[in-house]
Amino acid sequence: MYRLFILAKCDLGHAEECGEAIAELDDVSEVYSVTGGHDLLIKVTFDDLQSISDFVQDHLHRIPHLRETETMMSFRVYGQDIGDFVN
Amino acid sequence: MYRLFILAKCDLGHAEECGEAIAELDDVSEVYSVTGGHDLLIKVTFDDLQSISDFVQDHLHRIPHLRETETMMSFRVYGQDIGDFVN
Amino acid sequence: MYRLFILAKCDLGHAEECGEAIAELDDVSEVYSVTGGHDLLIKVTFDDLQSISDFVQDHLHRIPHLRETETMMSFRVYGQDIGDFVN
Amino acid sequence: MYRLFILAKCDLGHAEECGEAIAELDDVSEVYSVTGGHDLLIKVTFDDLQSISDFVQDHLHRIPHLRETETMMSFRVYGQDIGDFVN
Amino acid sequence: MYRLFILAKCDLGHAEECGEAIAELDDVSEVYSVTGGHDLLIKVTFDDLQSISDFVQDHLHRIPHLRETETMMSFRVYGQDIGDFVN
Amino acid sequence: MYRLFILAKCDLGHAEECGEAIAELDDVSEVYSVTGGHDLLIKVTFDDLQSISDFVQDHLHRIPHLRETETMMSFRVYGQDIGDFVN
Amino acid sequence: MYRLFILAKCDLGHAEECGEAIAELDDVSEVYSVTGGHDLLIKVTFDDLQSISDFVQDHLHRIPHLRETETMMSFRVYGQDIGDFVN
Amino acid sequence: MYRLFILAKCDLGHAEECGEAIAELDDVSEVYSVTGGHDLLIKVTFDDLQSISDFVQDHLHRIPHLRETETMMSFRVYGQDIGDFVN
Amino acid sequence: MYRLFILAKCDLGHAEECGEAIAELDDVSEVYSVTGGHDLLIKVTFDDLQSISDFVQDHLHRIPHLRETETMMSFRVYGQDIGDFVN
Amino acid sequence: MYRLFILAKCDLGHAEECGEAIAELDDVSEVYSVTGGHDLLIKVTFDDLQSISDFVQDHLHRIPHLRETETMMSFRVYGQDIGDFVN
Repeated sequence: MYRLFILAKCDLGHAEECGEAIAELDDVSEVYSVTGGHDLLIKVTFDDLQSISDFVQDHLHRIPHLRETETMMSFRVYGQDIGDFVN
Repeated sequence: MYRLFILAKCDLGHAEECGEAIAELDDVSEVYSVTGGHDLLIKVTFDDLQSISDFVQDHLHRIPHLRETETMMSFRVYGQDIGDFVN
Repeated sequence: MYRLFILAKCDLGHAEECGEAIAELDDVSEVYSVTGGHDLLIKVTFDDLQSISDFVQDHLHRIPHLRETETMMSFRVYGQDIGDFVN
Repeated sequence: MYRLFILAKCDLGHAEECGEAIAELDDVSEVYSVTGGHDLLIKVTFDDLQSISDFVQDHLHRIPHLRETETMMSFRVYGQDIGDFVN
Repeated sequence: MYRLFILAKCDLGHAEECGEAIAELDDVSEVYSVTGGHDLLIKVTFDDLQSISDFVQDHLHRIPHLRETETMMSFRVYGQDIGDFVN
Repeated sequence: MYRLFILAKCDLGHAEECGEAIAELDDVSEVYSVTGGHDLLIKVTFDDLQSISDFVQDHLHRIPHLRETETMMSFRVYGQDIGDFVN
Repeated sequence: MYRLFILAKCDLGHAEECGEAIAELDDVSEVYSVTGGHDLLIKVTFDDLQSISDFVQDHLHRIPHLRETETMMSFRVYGQDIGDFVN
Repeated sequence: MYRLFILAKCDLGHAEECGEAIAELDDVSEVYSVTGGHDLLIKVTFDDLQSISDFVQDHLHRIPHLRETETMMSFRVYGQDIGDFVN
Repeated sequence: MYRLFILAKCDLGHAEECGEAIAELDDVSEVYSVTGGHDLLIKVTFDDLQSISDFVQDHLHRIPHLRETETMMSFRVYGQDIGDFVN
Repeated sequence: MYRLFILAKCDLGHAEECGEAIAELDDVSEVYSVTGGHDLLIKVTFDDLQSISDFVQDHLHRIPHLRETETMMSFRVYGQDIGDFVN
């Protein structure tokens, strides 16, 4: 399983509709409003790398009023209590 | 429920032991190695605000080889399939 | 009680009307013009986390001529003379 | 009345003692732990400009484990409910 | 006496007219073209804090082709030969 | 006449002695404590370019506890009331 | 042989068509979607320096929806198993 | 196949030995000296995600004189002439 | 003699015409395409400071498609083989 | 012919000896003290790419008190009056 985290900025006054729309997308597991300079922190899980590319470019980046994204891929999970999340 | 996300840098060569040690801390629910300029993305959940302060200063910031942290508090969760995570 | 601090930039020539409009919003307790690269420092107090999300997205981010915001949530107050501000 | 706001970083693991020590200083009215890249947001009020210089250099910057500060001076207060804070 | 220093960027090709216009404003004592990433360094002197707010928002920020400003307030003057500039 | 402006950071707790020492240097005409991320704004005037190099490297950069400097040279003065400052 | 690496940002929703179009350009040997703040990492190989200039300005920078580029030229290759890539 | 790209800074005067040592590591396919603010651009290929974590933390980050790294994972390859590199 | 160095960005696809146009300007002695985040590095030599101001604002900043500039003035030349370049 | 430009920072108080030492190195054609955040702008010319690598790592980066460098390679020269500099 692949996990991608995305920090996103939206046009002012549109973070809520961006957040709702992104939460509807396939593969998206969590969407949070966060403090700081970004509006949203998004967690997406995939079964293969090609899906990540399709998700970012065909779905996420077409959400209206999304302004900028920074993506981080997880390549390891620490700790035991996360059990079956370990790849 | 409060959710705090933390992007952390560790001293070079020590991200793994930092990650393992942080995953052992109370309240920590997820710790990931991530690509980019940071080493770890950490998710912590709390029942009250005071616990956040104790966690960051008394526990997280005392992990050896942790070098720098940037914290983000979530104040809203989007979407329906996250069910009982909504505060 | 939750306290959110916001550093904001406005379109040039509009910081005054932004500042006045923000000071009128519910929950806003203090609005200052500040030196540096930002125009305003805003302090808002809330009774619950959900109100923060509504405030930022439904009220603050809809103020005309607001250009960019950076939010910081307080999770601890130091010192004794602040008395009943401690959560 | 002069109001100075200070965003401060402390050495890791020392934000709490920094915060407590700063809250003890004369003229300091509020000290908060905040999310983001800084540890503390400090509000100080003065009766004259010379006191600001003394405060920053003789008191604040001598607090052990303080690492970096960014200061902002307020030159205007917006809104009505702050009443007698207006200079 | 209050001294405010402002680093300003102008739209390309307009720094000269910006500089001339700013030099005409009340309270402005010095305006320089400077090397680096900013176009102008401006020094303004005031008798009271309220005038600073009026100057920045009602006069400076309305100069056509001004693009971005960063303000710094002086709170102390060093040395003896500046004599009567000391507040 | 050449005018050089310098934004300087000092080691924490040493801005005052840095400021005093710099104000004693030949050619230095004004030294201010300023708000923001820097500690001092320094104005120096020279009769020739070679003196600038000597000043920065032989005098300014040898002041104890100076940590970082950013220099800006003025190449034009705007406005009329500065009279004989125009080169 | 000259190797130029380019980190590129595209307009949101257009990274895929940018990537496909760049991969069609002469001299381009590899184009990758990457995590982080950039969309694409591009590797181009040339036989002479003049071709680099023509490539960047006449071909790469005319790809629609390309927004920003940062170029790095390689001036040395390390290791043995890259064999005939060494210039 | 997974591809990880790493921009690295080394201690001054040690980029060459860092580059040579990194080129010796398993999984490393290309190491280049590059212009700009970084010293090296490294390409590594893996068969599974867990190996990435081991590589970065157990091997790369233990190279003496390595100072800072920024990692980017590729999640898509564009164009046809790269043939069997497509995952 | 005064030497001014300018790092410039142009609108995408226009660096070549910018470079050609700038090379035609009086006082410009060298114009290079450079790697990194800027497009051009320009060297200009002047006989007096006032000419610098005229050059930057009346000529350089009016070149179409120039987007951003950062200027650096040289105040000393090192070494002997540059002979008559020493001011 | 290859031209490499280097922006360098030195330890405070050592820019002059750094500049003198760098000007003595083979291939270095020009070394300037510059305003801004860097201390030196260096121009080096080479006959082959391999020499660039040797110069940067074996000679430049071993100059005592050099702290940080940013390199830019020129890949095109504009204008006619530079005549025989065109590669």
